Amino acid sequence: MDETTFAVLGTGGIGRRALEVSQHKDGVTPVAACDRNGVAVDFDGLDVDELLAATEGNIDSGPNDDDVAADGGAATGDGSTTTDDGETTVDSSGVKQHGEQRGVVASAQARPSDDPIQDVIDAGDGIDAVLLALPNYEHDFIPRTADRFVEGGYSGVLIDVLKRSRVIDMLEDRSDDLEAAGITFICGAGATPGFLTGAAALAAQSFVEVESVDIWWGVGLKSGYEDNRGTVREDIAHLPEYDLETARELSDEEIEEIVDDHDGVIEFEDMEHADDVLLERAGICDAADVTVGGILDVRSDEKPTTTTVSVTGTTFDGERATNTFELGDETSMEANVNGPALGYLKAGVRRNRAGEYGVFGPAELMPGF
Amino acid sequence: MDETTFAVLGTGGIGRRALEVSQHKDGVTPVAACDRNGVAVDFDGLDVDELLAATEGNIDSGPNDDDVAADGGAATGDGSTTTDDGETTVDSSGVKQHGEQRGVVASAQARPSDDPIQDVIDAGDGIDAVLLALPNYEHDFIPRTADRFVEGGYSGVLIDVLKRSRVIDMLEDRSDDLEAAGITFICGAGATPGFLTGAAALAAQSFVEVESVDIWWGVGLKSGYEDNRGTVREDIAHLPEYDLETARELSDEEIEEIVDDHDGVIEFEDMEHADDVLLERAGICDAADVTVGGILDVRSDEKPTTTTVSVTGTTFDGERATNTFELGDETSMEANVNGPALGYLKAGVRRNRAGEYGVFGPAELMPGF
Repeated sequence: MDETTFAVLGTGGIGRRALEVSQHKDGVTPVAACDRNGVAVDFDGLDVDELLAATEGNIDSGPNDDDVAADGGAATGDGSTTTDDGETTVDSSGVKQHGEQRGVVASAQARPSDDPIQDVIDAGDGIDAVLLALPNYEHDFIPRTADRFVEGGYSGVLIDVLKRSRVIDMLEDRSDDLEAAGITFICGAGATPGFLTGAAALAAQSFVEVESVDIWWGVGLKSGYEDNRGTVREDIAHLPEYDLETARELSDEEIEEIVDDHDGVIEFEDMEHADDVLLERAGICDAADVTVGGILDVRSDEKPTTTTVSVTGTTFDGERATNTFELGDETSMEANVNGPALGYLKAGVRRNRAGEYGVFGPAELMPGF
Repeated sequence: MDETTFAVLGTGGIGRRALEVSQHKDGVTPVAACDRNGVAVDFDGLDVDELLAATEGNIDSGPNDDDVAADGGAATGDGSTTTDDGETTVDSSGVKQHGEQRGVVASAQARPSDDPIQDVIDAGDGIDAVLLALPNYEHDFIPRTADRFVEGGYSGVLIDVLKRSRVIDMLEDRSDDLEAAGITFICGAGATPGFLTGAAALAAQSFVEVESVDIWWGVGLKSGYEDNRGTVREDIAHLPEYDLETARELSDEEIEEIVDDHDGVIEFEDMEHADDVLLERAGICDAADVTVGGILDVRSDEKPTTTTVSVTGTTFDGERATNTFELGDETSMEANVNGPALGYLKAGVRRNRAGEYGVFGPAELMPGF
């Protein structure tokens, strides 16, 4: 495959780690990065070391990181919160800022911008794929960002690491527009749904009928807790007593109380995760046969449980069995988000170059499974 | 993806099971099948039930099934042994024949042919992919069959389930010719290398550097022993005291002796398996970092050990870990060959339609990994 160029929208946890991991991957070159304050573009390839060093501790975690990867994603996503009309909606309480300049502008490669997303769109001819590493301030934020790329005449790959089923539905509603624009949108390409639904799609290949897919994750988040408050808030929304709206309204103190009530270890069952709809889209099984749960420990960096994908089905010769995929406990959620995300990004570019447009889930990018 | 039509060359174990499993898969339609006696072609889709019923117990296991899938493949491959010049080289001792007509010709859909492979080539415009489910009588048999498709003007997908590194090399030597012909050749797409190197490619996504890939398989072959003598012979060639040539010269009695010496349970270490070169091709790790071994029990249908892929590496944030993929012990080798083979077949057709020609391993068909 030819060289793939990509941009990151958002230089928080996911965006930064994607830039960093791309340094280790063949054939992917970061050429643009932005947050809400500015943008860096270099078609010869960004100097990732400089950009990360200059902006370290100078990033914006956003007021609320709903929807960005749970076991999934370091949800300290920054990103431009520029709205459709170009107005910026900065919640300054969410900004962690130690440098003189805000966010990405601290890098010598970046310049301030009133509309950094538009700057990326304007550079779109030289960008094969755009990783939307944005916090999802509102749950239609990513879909609305996709609209901007359509309106701006971009044709290439857009890829996110979201996990909520409802966001996939909103993107699906835009499928015709994305196809007409020549955009290939890959949704949910982080650890989960991305990595783990890919594993489920593979594991299902022994079977002619899949009975159940069980995705069970463990995350230890002690040292990352401060940077991942958005993830914790998002996860709390999955507890039976809460939903997205009530969790959004919780004060930090109330969240601390909930964490204390659970002694720092919160277990989740039957989460609303897009794994189900993405596996159904890929023809692996019915959405109803997918269950997602896990354990988050905010007081230890050790995973409280092993992240495991179990696929149970029946073989063509009538045997019932379970294939399993397990992640080593030492693999961080950041490692499990960004490696797969870049892999799916490259797969998306291949599809895009072949003229396949519209919305795809990670499992649909697996080999014809 | 559009509908995919495919042919099977060889209606032995792999060919028959591929036809059967395709009935359970969306979007793959078998339109041709041949063995050395005849050919069935129906562009509306073969009646698989009729073909399998009519030819049951009426197939040719070939004199020697070298190179066809170990844990891998039901190596009872039949196939035309028609040579390049159209002469048939029938070893009648290898034919199991209970019907009046030989092999596939027992089906009402088939007709006798002096050169069934040429018949499939002639029907090539309506065939997206050809599964080479042939016993590899000589280790260049599959490569020479590929030559025939090139010479015959076929442009589509050729796919095999071979496992020997040297065959991959022979196909690689033909890469330019295949590319010029517009052929996408997928090699080693059965259980191993296919299924398990795909799993290794996926499992590697947590890591920026892979230290080792260990593939360990278990096969219980009691009821399938008679149909899989070729596989057993092939496996014996992996024992330290033997190689392909000396194993080929063993009489059936000598093979029985070797099996008896091992009490029916033969353990293999450091097998020459194409997994290593295929993972290196896909950029996952160096070939030298891949080890393949396993245990074959010809006196039980229970697997003597669990088939496991272990990928050990280092994450971008410096942690060392092992991700694992395990197949349920109840999954038969036939199930683990044919599901993945059809998935890779569909992936190959997608590549072919996008204009990507040449030789590919299964791991290269994974999402940009």
